[in-house]
Amino acid sequence: MSTPLRSPGGFPVVGIIGGGQLARMCAGPAAELGVTLAVLAEAPDASAALVTPFAPVGDHTDVETVRDFARHCDVITFDHEHVPAPVIEALVADGVAVHPTPEALLHAQDKLVMRRALTEAGVPCPRWTQAATEEEVTTFAEAVGWPVVVKTPRGGYDGKGVMLADTVDDVRDWLSAAAERGETLLLEERVPFVRELSVLLARSPSGQAAAWPVVETVQTDGICTEVIAPAPDLEPEAARAATLVGLDIAAALEVTGVMAVELFELADGSVVVNELAMRPHNSGHWSMDGAVTGQFEQHLRAVLDLPLGSPRAREPWTVMGNVLGGEPTDLYPTYRHLMARDPELKVHLYGKGVRPGRKIGHVNVSGSDLADLRERARHAADYIQGVIDE
Amino acid sequence: MSTPLRSPGGFPVVGIIGGGQLARMCAGPAAELGVTLAVLAEAPDASAALVTPFAPVGDHTDVETVRDFARHCDVITFDHEHVPAPVIEALVADGVAVHPTPEALLHAQDKLVMRRALTEAGVPCPRWTQAATEEEVTTFAEAVGWPVVVKTPRGGYDGKGVMLADTVDDVRDWLSAAAERGETLLLEERVPFVRELSVLLARSPSGQAAAWPVVETVQTDGICTEVIAPAPDLEPEAARAATLVGLDIAAALEVTGVMAVELFELADGSVVVNELAMRPHNSGHWSMDGAVTGQFEQHLRAVLDLPLGSPRAREPWTVMGNVLGGEPTDLYPTYRHLMARDPELKVHLYGKGVRPGRKIGHVNVSGSDLADLRERARHAADYIQGVIDE
Repeated sequence: MSTPLRSPGGFPVVGIIGGGQLARMCAGPAAELGVTLAVLAEAPDASAALVTPFAPVGDHTDVETVRDFARHCDVITFDHEHVPAPVIEALVADGVAVHPTPEALLHAQDKLVMRRALTEAGVPCPRWTQAATEEEVTTFAEAVGWPVVVKTPRGGYDGKGVMLADTVDDVRDWLSAAAERGETLLLEERVPFVRELSVLLARSPSGQAAAWPVVETVQTDGICTEVIAPAPDLEPEAARAATLVGLDIAAALEVTGVMAVELFELADGSVVVNELAMRPHNSGHWSMDGAVTGQFEQHLRAVLDLPLGSPRAREPWTVMGNVLGGEPTDLYPTYRHLMARDPELKVHLYGKGVRPGRKIGHVNVSGSDLADLRERARHAADYIQGVIDE
Repeated sequence: MSTPLRSPGGFPVVGIIGGGQLARMCAGPAAELGVTLAVLAEAPDASAALVTPFAPVGDHTDVETVRDFARHCDVITFDHEHVPAPVIEALVADGVAVHPTPEALLHAQDKLVMRRALTEAGVPCPRWTQAATEEEVTTFAEAVGWPVVVKTPRGGYDGKGVMLADTVDDVRDWLSAAAERGETLLLEERVPFVRELSVLLARSPSGQAAAWPVVETVQTDGICTEVIAPAPDLEPEAARAATLVGLDIAAALEVTGVMAVELFELADGSVVVNELAMRPHNSGHWSMDGAVTGQFEQHLRAVLDLPLGSPRAREPWTVMGNVLGGEPTDLYPTYRHLMARDPELKVHLYGKGVRPGRKIGHVNVSGSDLADLRERARHAADYIQGVIDE
């Protein structure tokens, strides 16, 4: 097929660069909205390519490939944050609508740029600095106290590109590697947080914004493994303050589409920003079943500058459990078992081959008994991963 | 593409014969389940073909075409009830899993067969007979009272193939036409019903069944225009009895997949069966947003003999409004307006061109104030149809 087929009646084509699970999970909402999806995929069997009629394979770092793809689309958005800025800027120069814009997206691509912008906007952050030398590391660490958090500004995800350094010796190799790339490192104080929260919101080019309830995220080895929506025992005033941090960032950076702001909650109930993601995010998967408008529908609405949908939660609690690849590779019999055990479980699979530690799906379960929901989500995720066998 | 791409891990391909909106609305749930969808479509731009990578165009009445299609699939099911029995029987003879089976499906294809089977199973029906002559019409009408309901046993839908006859003169042309087709007519007494209800359920080949809450359906000119879930003011005992009618039919006819049983509720609270549909049904569209398991996910689970999902309603009320084609053909600006007016509205469009009276989409809205929900669903449907302009 040489061009995507549109729905009659003036409906647009949304092009997504990258064929991962975030693009895949847009497929259902796009079909319901009457919007056509186009995906620039890494391979013919990429997660999103399996469910999208128009999914040409191409290199997202090649300007001409991306340009050719964009010709079929009314708006371009992203499955991941790895499209080089010059490629996106070329699209913008061509007059293509791109959301988020390259200016906004840079804050999710480069953590030093993000820290500078947030600090300038008055958004609470951990103390931070950039460091190119051992002396800069030592000076910062002595000011905030060892250990310090060391991050490569670009390319990190799921705990990669992040290190906790106890001494300057731990940082030596990273400093050299960064110097070779012509980069510096980002250093942050280790914040004595009591838990991690996430504010998920969407903002449209017109400036309309809508935030889902603040959630609690549980990380294991740097990967988000559980999300509780809404965050338990969060005072309304604290939830409001956290939401405002997200909305302030969205406005200051002129974010378009869905954005996740990962927060550390401190003992006094205040929050500081940990990370930003400018796309649908793991911490928002609960919304697919638990909210009136799921994050993938909302992202499509936002990048098309359509009015945003209600982020209201439909049930008192929704718990999301991330499903990581483990030993078992035959998932189909496994999920049959889980469906029989728990008819309320919403199993979402990404059509990806199993590799240990790879995100291959998630489960959602909603209701009013939080402890019970957490046990069920945990069980399902562990069972698929092969951590438990009954 | 010559064959559908499967998800790794043992996941199956579900083939749907017919590319209408019912097949289309399976696309989202299939993606989430990791199941691959294949659609035998009427045209390259059929509703479901727009959202399905593997959607060859072919004639569903041609045995070889259907056979070729079925070779790619682990199970075959249907978007509509118009596939001829010999075609389906040929698949079964080939060893293909087909759900519903041709034996069950015949009851949704032929209303005389349905009336005979239900009467034999002791399921409450209006008084009925088959008639080939004017004398048979008169004899029946004099026994039950004029007017009588006249139906062609096959091929009717959305009020087509149904007539209310005041005298035998009204029936003359239909009798001749039926005789030419080698058929007889189905006559039914006009039941003094107080409202119409629908029982939607799914049953798997293993015999597991799950029924959604009984809903009230509102028909306009023979087309279902509104569904209220659950049916207001229905006594628990009456709801239970209606559900049992549905479950009894499913068991008696060995139905597999989703089935809708349309019921007349009488003044004394009892019900009689009006029609059957053996597929996801208009009266179940509310479940896409209002229930833990929507009817399209459940249909996929049922035909794959996977354990069924919970049919629990997530909110006190969900109202579905059917969207019919009207004067306006540019739907995109229309729905933008509706999204702005009501952020809680779930708009589902089928990617079909607008023709007056054609079903082109539906809206769902959920909450606790039924009168308000009905007004909002009605407004949205009317606005898209162009019945109102603000």
